[in-house]
Amino acid sequence: MSQSKTVRKLQVLSPVPADIEIANSVDPFHISEIAKQLNLNPNYYDLYGKYKAKVLLSVLDELQESQDGYYVVVGGITPTPLGEGKSTTTVGLCQALGAFLDKKVFTCLRQPSQGPTFGIKGGAAGGGYSQVIPMDEFNLHLTGDIHAITAANNLLAAAIDTRIFHESSQSDKALFNRLCPPNKEEKRCFSDIMYRRLKKLGINKTKPEDLTPQEVKKFARLDIDPNSITWRRVMDVNDRFLRKITVGQGPEEKGMVRETGFDISVASEIMAVLALTTSLADMRERLGKMVIGNSKAGDPITADDLGLGGALTVLMKDAINPTLMQTLEGTPVLVHAGPFANIAHGNSSIVADKIALKLVGPGGFVVTEAGFGADIGAEKFMNIKCRYSGLTPQCAVIVATIRALKMHGGGPEVVAGKPLDHAYLNENVALVETGSANLARHISNTKAYGVNVVVAVNMFSTDTEAELNSVRNAALAAGAFDAVVCTHHAHGGKGALDLGIAVQKACENVTQPMKFLYPLELSIKEKIEAIARSYGASGVEYSDQAEKQIEMYSRQGFSGLPICMAKTQYSFSHNASTKGAPTGFTLPIRDVRGSIGAGFIYPLVGTMSTMPGLPTRPCFYDIDIDTATGKVIGLS
Amino acid sequence: MSQSKTVRKLQVLSPVPADIEIANSVDPFHISEIAKQLNLNPNYYDLYGKYKAKVLLSVLDELQESQDGYYVVVGGITPTPLGEGKSTTTVGLCQALGAFLDKKVFTCLRQPSQGPTFGIKGGAAGGGYSQVIPMDEFNLHLTGDIHAITAANNLLAAAIDTRIFHESSQSDKALFNRLCPPNKEEKRCFSDIMYRRLKKLGINKTKPEDLTPQEVKKFARLDIDPNSITWRRVMDVNDRFLRKITVGQGPEEKGMVRETGFDISVASEIMAVLALTTSLADMRERLGKMVIGNSKAGDPITADDLGLGGALTVLMKDAINPTLMQTLEGTPVLVHAGPFANIAHGNSSIVADKIALKLVGPGGFVVTEAGFGADIGAEKFMNIKCRYSGLTPQCAVIVATIRALKMHGGGPEVVAGKPLDHAYLNENVALVETGSANLARHISNTKAYGVNVVVAVNMFSTDTEAELNSVRNAALAAGAFDAVVCTHHAHGGKGALDLGIAVQKACENVTQPMKFLYPLELSIKEKIEAIARSYGASGVEYSDQAEKQIEMYSRQGFSGLPICMAKTQYSFSHNASTKGAPTGFTLPIRDVRGSIGAGFIYPLVGTMSTMPGLPTRPCFYDIDIDTATGKVIGLS
Repeated sequence: MSQSKTVRKLQVLSPVPADIEIANSVDPFHISEIAKQLNLNPNYYDLYGKYKAKVLLSVLDELQESQDGYYVVVGGITPTPLGEGKSTTTVGLCQALGAFLDKKVFTCLRQPSQGPTFGIKGGAAGGGYSQVIPMDEFNLHLTGDIHAITAANNLLAAAIDTRIFHESSQSDKALFNRLCPPNKEEKRCFSDIMYRRLKKLGINKTKPEDLTPQEVKKFARLDIDPNSITWRRVMDVNDRFLRKITVGQGPEEKGMVRETGFDISVASEIMAVLALTTSLADMRERLGKMVIGNSKAGDPITADDLGLGGALTVLMKDAINPTLMQTLEGTPVLVHAGPFANIAHGNSSIVADKIALKLVGPGGFVVTEAGFGADIGAEKFMNIKCRYSGLTPQCAVIVATIRALKMHGGGPEVVAGKPLDHAYLNENVALVETGSANLARHISNTKAYGVNVVVAVNMFSTDTEAELNSVRNAALAAGAFDAVVCTHHAHGGKGALDLGIAVQKACENVTQPMKFLYPLELSIKEKIEAIARSYGASGVEYSDQAEKQIEMYSRQGFSGLPICMAKTQYSFSHNASTKGAPTGFTLPIRDVRGSIGAGFIYPLVGTMSTMPGLPTRPCFYDIDIDTATGKVIGLS
Repeated sequence: MSQSKTVRKLQVLSPVPADIEIANSVDPFHISEIAKQLNLNPNYYDLYGKYKAKVLLSVLDELQESQDGYYVVVGGITPTPLGEGKSTTTVGLCQALGAFLDKKVFTCLRQPSQGPTFGIKGGAAGGGYSQVIPMDEFNLHLTGDIHAITAANNLLAAAIDTRIFHESSQSDKALFNRLCPPNKEEKRCFSDIMYRRLKKLGINKTKPEDLTPQEVKKFARLDIDPNSITWRRVMDVNDRFLRKITVGQGPEEKGMVRETGFDISVASEIMAVLALTTSLADMRERLGKMVIGNSKAGDPITADDLGLGGALTVLMKDAINPTLMQTLEGTPVLVHAGPFANIAHGNSSIVADKIALKLVGPGGFVVTEAGFGADIGAEKFMNIKCRYSGLTPQCAVIVATIRALKMHGGGPEVVAGKPLDHAYLNENVALVETGSANLARHISNTKAYGVNVVVAVNMFSTDTEAELNSVRNAALAAGAFDAVVCTHHAHGGKGALDLGIAVQKACENVTQPMKFLYPLELSIKEKIEAIARSYGASGVEYSDQAEKQIEMYSRQGFSGLPICMAKTQYSFSHNASTKGAPTGFTLPIRDVRGSIGAGFIYPLVGTMSTMPGLPTRPCFYDIDIDTATGKVIGLS
């Protein structure tokens, strides 16, 4: 079916102007026009201004009889610190499919974290002639989902410290009487959420007055071990001075100080819940099951134990609806969730993909991006996201650049902000050939899931024909379904036409069923080891702390969860400077943590920063508003 | 002009059901219907879902030739801790004017802080049959303004600590070179915001290379005195453990620890800026002028000095647009800003009032609420808000209850959560008569601004005819234009018909010009003393710290700002237990602070908590979502 009404013909300039100049050079379609092309009834979306709308989850009920379209995931080879254009390729591919190949198509992207927009990184809406617009709305606030996560995360954090404080000064009875106060008729009763805790404790009574003193104590006293608390506060700002702090130093807090810290909001488990949930009811359960630490007896304490699962869901009730936007060429985009790609799974939301698959229908395409290199991003897409969604991708795109392959082949270090070595600016086929080992392993690892792999070489002006041919040959030799060169940054969808055609063929020619890397029934260690082998490791080494945590999570009944490795994205191994396709190393596991509500265990391979900082001259120096027109300037 | 299309006839029940039951019992009109009745063109608003819209500031340009309607402010007598129904009366009055008296009317309200909704307080959308709907949307997130404030406030906080950190380890030259890095053509240049600092420093050069080493130092090194920093972080959560914290304890921060704390977001100066700004360009200037502390030499350091005025404005660019909602009876409401009523001025925004006044036009009514009792709320409305807006109110409504007047007359203490003493439940005309001294002083103080004062007695079922007559007589004797009894909580607009008629007459019969309590040219102390006299004080006593601060602000050139007293709302005096209309006391000023960007100096009369806590059993225990319907339950 044609989407012609909202297709926008781009007038591309050379050299390519700055991203915001391109973004500001076109007038976006009113988002209701985009919705109309999708046959999306206004009952199923809420406008947020003229260029954004939240698509309501209820549309899934309406469309439950419809068939899904093709499902394509975009991953990448192990990147340089400059990034290899995965988001841009995701957008460019969709512009090709929608604006040039007359396919129904949907791009599913993560919402960028706002903090880094003002730090070093700038925005994350794609780039060049492959972008989501309006760029400023994409990068700032969007429809408030991350703000809702911040509010919910921090309400839970406040509830933890305050509960410990109130328990420290009250008898079991006083605590119980405050939790179940008499109503107007002088009767005490349990609220709905309290029955969840009673059930967990195996107390089958419905009247507060029937509880024995022992039961009163068990019910009312969470007895949280302050040293076991894993729940931190969050903020969507690059604030390095909050990484480690001491709270409770006010006189009213009576000396109940504690060391803790803030993460950036997208690192919140609530973000991971949002990305993995499948319905409002499912989100309610996951939020309630989130574990914040242990009781002194070693039992996990949940948000529901604190009385908060319902309130957290209320705070997140609008955030569960994905945000509809558009690309430069007028194809539809769903922006939703943006979990950290190491301590979480780094993929956009299941519900957005589900809605998109129904809306494009059979023969249409949903293209979704997985964070980092395919070793982490695609692996987590398959083993965590698809496991929870029940969805099956037909094709995985792996984005490669000549630059990154040269680095893997032994080229000098690539450092952000420093000029590139001449090896990267002049032909060097040998480096590309050697470096293709990295690409080859990503291809074979990804193929093993039963999908067809298409390699997209994101071409730079300095790339030569011989270098590009070398990658193509290496990719096909490694089992890729196809390998094509793309110029969507410079040309928009037109530059990704070959990629669009290759992806279509790959989707139409799937020959294998989908396979996971490991079954959930394996032990935590067996699952970690299966993933480590896919990295090329010959073994795994656990710290004492990791051993202790694995034992604890197994004892608490959480060993059946999938594994989410927190590993550097700059190498298959734990060592960021080991390029190419290393083998024979031992992967060290420093610690093991759990996001129980979201539904995964995450081993830490090395140290992960969860709160970025600001440089001496942050991006914000250039960001301002034209007060006459209201337009944002200086956003990069 | 008739608003009949969106008038909703209420079916009132007795006894009055819970607020959320009433709110959920009616289907709100689509907000575009409300806009249509206002003749508000869709170009001038952005929908945020079906029941909220942001009205764009650009409508003021369109309507600049239109005349304003009548401007009515609602204040109250000195309240009990239970509150006397000021918001409810504001809404009820508008329902009377719009739904029964066929007037064009607009209610302008503050956005409630989300944090307390989950703590003790519950929501703030009015009550009974005088409410803003949908109640859950009013109380939660709204259109993201407070979240934007949180983000902007905390970006500035992060920039302060990080700047000190970077300055501590870099030479003047290195710092300068990082602030003005070479561009692609290897040329250094200043960004626009840097010219603001250069101008402030009296450096008239445009090329970085022309600066002398001394000028490089002055420009690049802010040299912030950590002990002088008044800028705190904020969060819209009741998190008492953040009141006083130590930051910077991570190893990367190299021991640069500092004691600071979090306030609740509505206490941010940025909230006060939002409430007092008059345009996007004005907001840009105010945000840039905010002072975060001093240099070690004692000069004020601003957000613009840190390079942030533009970026803060970008974060606030949507927040500047007020949110359109509706009352239970279908009259329009603008919700905007919610500054603290003590350390800030506690009034909703100037831009909302301005838009509303144009939209109702001549003969229409805009009713706006001032926080706390009239001693603080109406005083700040007149001397701060109207001073900046240039708007002139015709009528002030003072809300009184028999309960509060009895308390002022010597009745026993009223404590939230405890049963009321029998004095409050049975006729006691003597207490009411004595207590009316409090009302009388509020009337005469408010009348002095040149407005007509109408007293609204918010009637409870236990009030008697004799008690009500006593208040009426006392009010008229004190110079009120009229005094009427209202039952809008039980009956909606119909219960405030007499009030509506009285307000209309008051507006049509203004005989005096508007007068301020003090001219801005007075010294800080003279202005403080003028306000203290209006409280009944015979003198003012300054702490050494207050003296020091007054000296500093005067030296820095800020003595021309209006004064915003941070005083308890429970007494005319500084002592919350002193009821009635005290005289002859000395008002102690503990400290003096400034919100320089917002535009006022705030003396602290006693200690103000700027971060509430959670009780043992917070409201959140009852809040949940019906996952089948998506409806919020348990919100109070």
